Amino acid sequence: MKSHYQYLVIGGGSGGVASARRAAKYGASTLLIESKALGGTCVNVGCVPKKVMWYASDMKHHLDLAKDYGFESVDPKQGVSFEFNWSTFKSKRDAYIKRLNGIYERNLTKEGVEYMFGFARFTKDGKVEVIHKDDQSQTSTFTADNILIATGGTPVFPTDVPGYELGISSDGFFQLEKQPKKVAIVGAGYIGVELAGVFNGLGTETHLIIRGNTVLRSFDQMIQDTLTTHYENEGVNIHKQSNVSKIEKIANSNLKRVTLTSGETLEVDELIWTIGRRSLIAIQTENIGLKLNSRDQVIVDEFQRTNVPNVYSLGDVVGNVELTPVAIAAGRKLSNRLFGPSIYAQQKQDYSNVPSVVFSHPEAGTIGLTEQQAIEKYGADDIKVYRSRFTSMYYAMSEHKSPTAYKLVTLKSENEKVLGLHIVGDGSAEILQGFGVAIKMGATKADFDSCVAIHPTSAEEIVTLV
Amino acid sequence: MKSHYQYLVIGGGSGGVASARRAAKYGASTLLIESKALGGTCVNVGCVPKKVMWYASDMKHHLDLAKDYGFESVDPKQGVSFEFNWSTFKSKRDAYIKRLNGIYERNLTKEGVEYMFGFARFTKDGKVEVIHKDDQSQTSTFTADNILIATGGTPVFPTDVPGYELGISSDGFFQLEKQPKKVAIVGAGYIGVELAGVFNGLGTETHLIIRGNTVLRSFDQMIQDTLTTHYENEGVNIHKQSNVSKIEKIANSNLKRVTLTSGETLEVDELIWTIGRRSLIAIQTENIGLKLNSRDQVIVDEFQRTNVPNVYSLGDVVGNVELTPVAIAAGRKLSNRLFGPSIYAQQKQDYSNVPSVVFSHPEAGTIGLTEQQAIEKYGADDIKVYRSRFTSMYYAMSEHKSPTAYKLVTLKSENEKVLGLHIVGDGSAEILQGFGVAIKMGATKADFDSCVAIHPTSAEEIVTLV
Repeated sequence: MKSHYQYLVIGGGSGGVASARRAAKYGASTLLIESKALGGTCVNVGCVPKKVMWYASDMKHHLDLAKDYGFESVDPKQGVSFEFNWSTFKSKRDAYIKRLNGIYERNLTKEGVEYMFGFARFTKDGKVEVIHKDDQSQTSTFTADNILIATGGTPVFPTDVPGYELGISSDGFFQLEKQPKKVAIVGAGYIGVELAGVFNGLGTETHLIIRGNTVLRSFDQMIQDTLTTHYENEGVNIHKQSNVSKIEKIANSNLKRVTLTSGETLEVDELIWTIGRRSLIAIQTENIGLKLNSRDQVIVDEFQRTNVPNVYSLGDVVGNVELTPVAIAAGRKLSNRLFGPSIYAQQKQDYSNVPSVVFSHPEAGTIGLTEQQAIEKYGADDIKVYRSRFTSMYYAMSEHKSPTAYKLVTLKSENEKVLGLHIVGDGSAEILQGFGVAIKMGATKADFDSCVAIHPTSAEEIVTLV
Repeated sequence: MKSHYQYLVIGGGSGGVASARRAAKYGASTLLIESKALGGTCVNVGCVPKKVMWYASDMKHHLDLAKDYGFESVDPKQGVSFEFNWSTFKSKRDAYIKRLNGIYERNLTKEGVEYMFGFARFTKDGKVEVIHKDDQSQTSTFTADNILIATGGTPVFPTDVPGYELGISSDGFFQLEKQPKKVAIVGAGYIGVELAGVFNGLGTETHLIIRGNTVLRSFDQMIQDTLTTHYENEGVNIHKQSNVSKIEKIANSNLKRVTLTSGETLEVDELIWTIGRRSLIAIQTENIGLKLNSRDQVIVDEFQRTNVPNVYSLGDVVGNVELTPVAIAAGRKLSNRLFGPSIYAQQKQDYSNVPSVVFSHPEAGTIGLTEQQAIEKYGADDIKVYRSRFTSMYYAMSEHKSPTAYKLVTLKSENEKVLGLHIVGDGSAEILQGFGVAIKMGATKADFDSCVAIHPTSAEEIVTLV
């Protein structure tokens, strides 16, 4: 291991790993430091295990329709148990994540990135000191031509709520060894909505405590309304205009008593805080005078440059569109610019029109402006909105229904250029990607219409809106 | 009922109904004549009941993974039967189709289209005579300013094969009241592949008899190879380089003995011919001198005009891209042109870059040129192909795997403009639609790359190809 590198990356999550690999590919000597597990939030306590749990809950949804699809014995009324074995499934999921961690290690090695597990911090003379993870009495110190801070984020706990520490975060969710019978989830953001969908699908009595009247407040109203109503229809207990005022342990049990601001109390096995995330920046940035904003996020320019020369940052610690693929793309582009050929000298990540999805039940997806944002920006007279709401053919054979709703927001004065697309319904996560390409290209409503529909699908409704 | 109309449509399938409704919307007096059931092939013996059966087979696929997703009791080894009740499901499916027929009738009425059930034919003086369906002794005769022939298509039987009439067509498939234990399907086209997937998924011993070595010969080689191999892995008995030389009834049973050109024999409950479709044009077109091609397809120009003034044709009877949404789009555009405002005076259907999918297991989708077609057109040196092959995360929890493979065909000399996209894997039918919009807009590889990935999905691999 050298003591000086061309590129030193602090944080082995999606952004750090992608940037380190790209740099090494160009021949830059690269060191990556990770304090926990390679793959960061996404692989270990985010997108990946979340999607696996979503699949499990989605499987239960299919099972509920099996009898309607002619599999008449696959029905609890015929004596079959649809019970979910959380504990064994959790072990399988953990084993899968371990395999992915190993793949990340091998990919780093393959690309020639050196890596070590430890806790990095800046020293006063601008070096990076690492306390070894496996032997914390050992430290190593490195210098580098370029340093990337990609330390990510972590869930927030509301430390002003008495007993808040009796609750867990989404990190804790992924550690649960057994399925809670009753759970309270606090927060209307996508993490809360996703976890509530998983628990409710798998048969846990699920309480969702939200400050407003709808979930996913930053999404288009159509998505908010459709999912809030459907979650309630599916049995999620949504406590609106509510917050938690205190949590107490119930004696001689593992139950917690949760008191809401309304005075109402719930007794639950687990309470999960999903009220937000903050940047994770315990690396003594004050020693190099790094500028952070009031939320401890690293301040960067469009080229991921911080105020400190040759120190860059990206991903959740920066906080601009906190999505794995955004961090990956930004990380690769940064390394292209720093270590790649001159054609990349001005390359930077474009943070506009980034598609994103929520693995709710059913899924939701969004790109561009909501109807409300479009009206605020351009005025209601210049906005034309197309909508469709229907039940997918999948539910034609069943009494059990799940909604699909699509909304296209366009700008009249620019030939009905598409400003935003908002979709909720089965398959939305897969459906959105291609439309994302078209919208990024500047698609108009006529471009949408000019593509012949694919029948019978749900997605075809997006190109036949009237 | 009048004796003269501004628009007379022969054929109440997707194209005819769409065109008639659009014409009536513009105020044209419109009569539609249908000999069987409204909705045509698509609704009655095509896309719709096919997709319903695909859903049933797909459900079985989910059931096979249920135990791997923690639903440990949902496993035949635990005594649960995964038997499919074909007969009751068929009744439900029929009832659904009947509901759709009713919706078609109501939509015609709502739009002001008059319709009648009967058998239309041209008379020598250019009128349309209709034998009433409910009382064939009755006829009515009509004249019209404009006539649309949208009579559709019908499956082909190989009348030179001894015993061919012991086999059924895809029409017959939808009439089957009980599930065959053993079935032979003849033909490698999309209908054969879809029916084989349904039968195999639902537990019928399935034999697929194909002339070449792969299925879906008109698709990109990657789709051919991936599906042929996967079908074989899943237990479909593919008889390659084979054809049927004769079929005989086995005495005292409902079984048929099928002799292949190789000499091999099979005993099956049903044999299904899926060797092609032809246009359905038994309306005495010779009386008006209508020009047909050698395959009995109506010859039309780009505006759907036949050689006979004021007689138009579209849909499967014309045979140019035989897809429901194409017929619908062409039908609406024709009526826009004939009866709509002057901005539509030159409107016509664009038959290029039409996306289409196969509801195989897993699905396949295609748009634009195959790699082979692109090489033939532009030369291998100007073609750059991007590929990805992987196993979707859905299968991470199971030993049972299903493949995903993507191929993007681009033109080097035009900034890697996308010439074709070919995809096979779960969700392909939904995934393709948005990419279709982008490709129709003239997307380049850089346009694909510029849209941030949606993680974790399969579709994201299409915007991260290297």
